[in-house]
Amino acid sequence: MGGDHAPQVTIEGAIEAADNGLDVLLVGHEPTLKTELSKHPNAPRLEIVHAEDVIEMHEHPAHAIRQKKNSSINVAARLLKEAKADALFSAGNSGAVMAAALFTLGRIEGVHRPAIGAVIPLLDGRVFLVDAGANADCDARNLLQFAQLGSAYANHVLGIARPRVGLVSNGEEETKGSALVQAALPLLKDSGLEFVGNVEGKDVTRGACDVAVCDGFTGNVMLKLAEGVQELILGLVREAIVSRPHYKLAGAVLRPALRRAARRLDYTEYGGAPLVGVNAPVFIGHGRSNAKAIYNGLRTAAEAASRDLIPTLAAAIRS
Amino acid sequence: MGGDHAPQVTIEGAIEAADNGLDVLLVGHEPTLKTELSKHPNAPRLEIVHAEDVIEMHEHPAHAIRQKKNSSINVAARLLKEAKADALFSAGNSGAVMAAALFTLGRIEGVHRPAIGAVIPLLDGRVFLVDAGANADCDARNLLQFAQLGSAYANHVLGIARPRVGLVSNGEEETKGSALVQAALPLLKDSGLEFVGNVEGKDVTRGACDVAVCDGFTGNVMLKLAEGVQELILGLVREAIVSRPHYKLAGAVLRPALRRAARRLDYTEYGGAPLVGVNAPVFIGHGRSNAKAIYNGLRTAAEAASRDLIPTLAAAIRS
Repeated sequence: MGGDHAPQVTIEGAIEAADNGLDVLLVGHEPTLKTELSKHPNAPRLEIVHAEDVIEMHEHPAHAIRQKKNSSINVAARLLKEAKADALFSAGNSGAVMAAALFTLGRIEGVHRPAIGAVIPLLDGRVFLVDAGANADCDARNLLQFAQLGSAYANHVLGIARPRVGLVSNGEEETKGSALVQAALPLLKDSGLEFVGNVEGKDVTRGACDVAVCDGFTGNVMLKLAEGVQELILGLVREAIVSRPHYKLAGAVLRPALRRAARRLDYTEYGGAPLVGVNAPVFIGHGRSNAKAIYNGLRTAAEAASRDLIPTLAAAIRS
Repeated sequence: MGGDHAPQVTIEGAIEAADNGLDVLLVGHEPTLKTELSKHPNAPRLEIVHAEDVIEMHEHPAHAIRQKKNSSINVAARLLKEAKADALFSAGNSGAVMAAALFTLGRIEGVHRPAIGAVIPLLDGRVFLVDAGANADCDARNLLQFAQLGSAYANHVLGIARPRVGLVSNGEEETKGSALVQAALPLLKDSGLEFVGNVEGKDVTRGACDVAVCDGFTGNVMLKLAEGVQELILGLVREAIVSRPHYKLAGAVLRPALRRAARRLDYTEYGGAPLVGVNAPVFIGHGRSNAKAIYNGLRTAAEAASRDLIPTLAAAIRS
């Protein structure tokens, strides 16, 4: 039921996942989902788990999760709790997904604050940004755990042998940084992780690290700014193209190439964002996810579950 | 003497400024500057003020400012103090420029923490980001003053009648934000400024406000990330263009248009970044400024001085 184009797009993504061999449970309002499924007569049969309510995007996450016991996200979280499902993906209210995960599934032992991770594609490779928005205020110990969880995720799910961890700061020098960054620096140095020091915004996009660690306020501002700058630059390119007749023709030829470039930065295209530190594989997608993004999210969630993500993250925190 | 390509590029920019009627004092190592000037036999005469030392980019700002009394930046700041110059522009170590400004020129009465402002061009108009990097840790009162100074600057220098002020946050809703943002929100609401509430990263690039207020850690991460994302996207566009032979030709036609788009986001092209709250017009440029950026910085600094920037900012703080 979650996402700007639900249930139409959500179901299209789920059908693609089922076509590719995934075992998908659709959690939501059964009559609505049945009507939508009936538009796909040739699709493989998808199991529906009925949920009476929906938490809307504007609702206060924690309140809504407590009040709407039978919202689709609560019902889905209970399926994991009862071992009737192995992983969860939602493109709905991400705060509500985090709240449902915390209330119903809990945290991995030793984790103080679960975080949102975001896989951001770069020119060459990708970077895992954590926390991308769950915790607006953090202490140094939280950042250390984000680094441990992020490093384990990058290794286990993204296949990076010894992930380089960077600490997002306003300068590479060790003297730079907020009080939080300065307090986190010695913890990261002593962490046993492959810590590469402070990284600036442009180091992150240049691939200076595999895991970029920051508080959720900074991470969320970064993610949304990256989206905004992408939009702005492509707008500037478009404006430049229409400024001269002979550019227009060249622009028409290049349109598919520009569109491809534009989509490369959209992190939701690449399988959703994991809630690292939650005691089950839970992934969130962008509200404006298309069917492909939904499919990628389901695929990544299934892969994470089949590869024992949670025991791996738990071991990283214990160490 | 400041900037990655000094003194060559600095002097080229200064000559362009002199050609356009500005009265430029070159502050730096006289023999070096004379040699460089001799390469421009047809240039208007530029006055040189000798300074024995230079503060390098890697030096600790406050230490270097105290130890190198006769560094070019200290000598330049003293020219303002002694009313022998009206404004200062430097593309050198920006921390050292701030330190020299604070030690020698002081703060506008009532200002707790001067900040760096950055004019960021958008598709339609521009946004003034403050603090872009001077203060990594701030309190709510600092953010209020950044808003007051930023609003007065946007009005007086950028010519925006009633600048809309936004508070950078991890969500537009009032419930979102770090503890700092939540504490600043009521102060901004009661400020008498045209406050439009919380703004996300992509609201900033979409022009939701004329002045975007944040702590210097967030602002600096944003500026450098914007630079990095720009570089990344243009890299992706370039990669897409070379991927097919028929794209290459179209790409060659479009190269000037793409280059123009690429330069639109470079805030240093637009006149440097003012140190708002310092008791004199002081502007810093990017280390990699080219001659045009140096010229624009000198021009903006001169304009700000001739328009009584400092009394205007002082009035904004008093109100």
